[in-house]
Amino acid sequence: MSDDISGRPASPARRSLLRAGIAAGVALPAGALAARAQGIAAGTPDPLITEVQDWARYTGDGVDATPYGMPIHFEDQVVRRNVPWLTADPISSINFTPIHELDGTITPAGCAFERHHSGAIELSKPDYRLMINGLVDRPLLFTYDDLTRFPRQAGVYFCECAANSGMEWAGAQLNGVQFTQGMIHNMEYVGVSLKTLLDEAGVKPEGKWVYVEGADASSNGRSIPIEKALGDVLVAFKANGEALRKEHGYPVRLVVPGWEGNMWVKWLRRIEVTDAAVESREETSKYTDTMADGTSRKWTWVMDAKSVITAPSPQVPIAHGPGPLVITGLAWSGRGAVTRVDVSTDGGKSWQTARLAAPGVPMAMTRFYFDLNWDGSELLLQSRAIDQTGYVQPTKDALRAIRGENSVYHNNAIQTWWIKPDGSAENVEVS
Amino acid sequence: MSDDISGRPASPARRSLLRAGIAAGVALPAGALAARAQGIAAGTPDPLITEVQDWARYTGDGVDATPYGMPIHFEDQVVRRNVPWLTADPISSINFTPIHELDGTITPAGCAFERHHSGAIELSKPDYRLMINGLVDRPLLFTYDDLTRFPRQAGVYFCECAANSGMEWAGAQLNGVQFTQGMIHNMEYVGVSLKTLLDEAGVKPEGKWVYVEGADASSNGRSIPIEKALGDVLVAFKANGEALRKEHGYPVRLVVPGWEGNMWVKWLRRIEVTDAAVESREETSKYTDTMADGTSRKWTWVMDAKSVITAPSPQVPIAHGPGPLVITGLAWSGRGAVTRVDVSTDGGKSWQTARLAAPGVPMAMTRFYFDLNWDGSELLLQSRAIDQTGYVQPTKDALRAIRGENSVYHNNAIQTWWIKPDGSAENVEVS
Repeated sequence: MSDDISGRPASPARRSLLRAGIAAGVALPAGALAARAQGIAAGTPDPLITEVQDWARYTGDGVDATPYGMPIHFEDQVVRRNVPWLTADPISSINFTPIHELDGTITPAGCAFERHHSGAIELSKPDYRLMINGLVDRPLLFTYDDLTRFPRQAGVYFCECAANSGMEWAGAQLNGVQFTQGMIHNMEYVGVSLKTLLDEAGVKPEGKWVYVEGADASSNGRSIPIEKALGDVLVAFKANGEALRKEHGYPVRLVVPGWEGNMWVKWLRRIEVTDAAVESREETSKYTDTMADGTSRKWTWVMDAKSVITAPSPQVPIAHGPGPLVITGLAWSGRGAVTRVDVSTDGGKSWQTARLAAPGVPMAMTRFYFDLNWDGSELLLQSRAIDQTGYVQPTKDALRAIRGENSVYHNNAIQTWWIKPDGSAENVEVS
Repeated sequence: MSDDISGRPASPARRSLLRAGIAAGVALPAGALAARAQGIAAGTPDPLITEVQDWARYTGDGVDATPYGMPIHFEDQVVRRNVPWLTADPISSINFTPIHELDGTITPAGCAFERHHSGAIELSKPDYRLMINGLVDRPLLFTYDDLTRFPRQAGVYFCECAANSGMEWAGAQLNGVQFTQGMIHNMEYVGVSLKTLLDEAGVKPEGKWVYVEGADASSNGRSIPIEKALGDVLVAFKANGEALRKEHGYPVRLVVPGWEGNMWVKWLRRIEVTDAAVESREETSKYTDTMADGTSRKWTWVMDAKSVITAPSPQVPIAHGPGPLVITGLAWSGRGAVTRVDVSTDGGKSWQTARLAAPGVPMAMTRFYFDLNWDGSELLLQSRAIDQTGYVQPTKDALRAIRGENSVYHNNAIQTWWIKPDGSAENVEVS
């Protein structure tokens, strides 16, 4: 994977008007699959199958080689990446999940994106404390072991940074889905319901909000309405089976299903029940949406339905000629389950329903596939998600009509990849 | 985690008869939760919450620290382990998933168990070939890229070695759930349906079996009836989102949902359609069940319903005194979804229904929880799984009545942990 796709300086928007002249591929009729496969009888013998290779001649690694394994070195390109011009200060910055290389729905913890306000801290379980104070009957202090004694919940949830796709508001900027939509992960979390802990403390009638903060230097304090806090929020200590990784808040983080990732406070240290939002530095200096008329929208917690085609895309161009092509991507919604994903090959003029790998799960990622018999001509690939509320993922133009071009956050617009006859892909816009 | 729990020599069975004299804990009434939590006002101030700690004074790691991350060093005990007396030759042996340390259902690839017949080989995608031959209309040879052009399927499946719990047939042998039930993992797989590839080749009417083999020196050839091969079997290239790990068959393995793990051939190299089972070395010298009367049962493909309490268990004793205790474990069935799990605290005299973290998924692991208000007395903890066919996981005695004590494989018996007043746990049997 060459480095020249890892981002480019913020330049004037490269908004291409490409709708005209694109001949879409033909959708693959069921039963007509004809992938290129070499007939053994017809061709020259392939020594990789007819000759004994070294890997079949010698034995491989034993079971004591890797007590905890890493990916094979052939996959060294599947890593989190940052964007130099975005990441002037790596302590207070972001990196991106390589979603272009992944399939299925689970994000491996090892390459799930990071966003820190003051770096990833090292906090041991013996040193861990969680305080609940404020408008409660009984202020409480929990050790890590205390938390493990409460009834647990488990669930798969996506975590999306409010700034995901933020650089794209003013035009197509970054040439890779890792950079345009990669501030997201999807993991199976296990923890204790925040409601269980708040009930233990006893929320007073005047308690209308909770203010949650982390143990890191930024504290990243955020205010959450009491209705959500007493709903599906988890105080989580496991992700994808194992302990949280250091960079994801070890040993304890908040999981706020469907809501913007900055509320999923890492290294969770304190929960104060309050009668009003605190309006802290970390929740007012960021995450506020500038609207088309220049005013600001104060709170945007829920991440609206969104989808993106992860492959083919600029970092993973089509490596073969015309014929069967698997188009795949991810869809999610903070308001519930994704019920349908549509794919367009002509920049949104026409749509066809994609195949979901499994029925949508509320506030979790859904994998979709669209099998195309590609004729080798240009495509303008798009996807749009529809969730259980009937909400349809909007076009960039529709979103800009409401929000203008000065926003940074909450961009859930339809993404377009311009696929060229050589199989390469470019981030473009159509209008 | 001390080393003395990592297995013991094969000694005469330590079958304890412990049913008498065990006072079971009382099930936790809803709403009566009272975990130990320190009242802030009542106690001495805790400097870990009242004083600024180093982790809040300095910034942590930046986003460029770990492009692909590993678990934090505090979790170094969460690793695959082998058992020295079982693993005389690490090239042809097994290690075990640390299921006692995990929660939820997904197994991280890094610590998912390994079983090799001739070691984990290194096979690159460019060198990869898959041949389909035998009783087909068109023998075919696929490259890795070819496989990625067929329509994909995704699903979460457990993979259990036929020998899981095999050392326990003659009595309670190994003091840790990692060793007694840890030859299992549960991952989200993505690949191409084997049926799709077989349809491409065209199975002749006389083709009744497929013989699958790997590219490693053992080849680990296995015969699979054509009905299963044309059913839910996947030719998989991703697990938990990313490429298969080297030790799990990179770049391509077979996924045979619900069937014994040795049929999930790694480094998949060849699929031959045949009119009869091949009865290869790897499928006749192993995986055959010796019955009570000394005869052998030829094929046992499906892994019957099974469950086990993962914590508390010998490697993770109860670290606190009486009061709220989370009992948790895993359940699975090769015949479909787990519909119910029961827990006993008195060695099977009485049973209560556990709480499933989510509805059971066919041929995938289910996490269960049982919240107990432990009175500090001895417990004989057991769990039993019931699947969608109505099958109930059997006791060891019931299984031995059919199978005798000379089996090695397919032990899905109920497991007992003897919990002592000090919180420690021991692998025992009750009868």
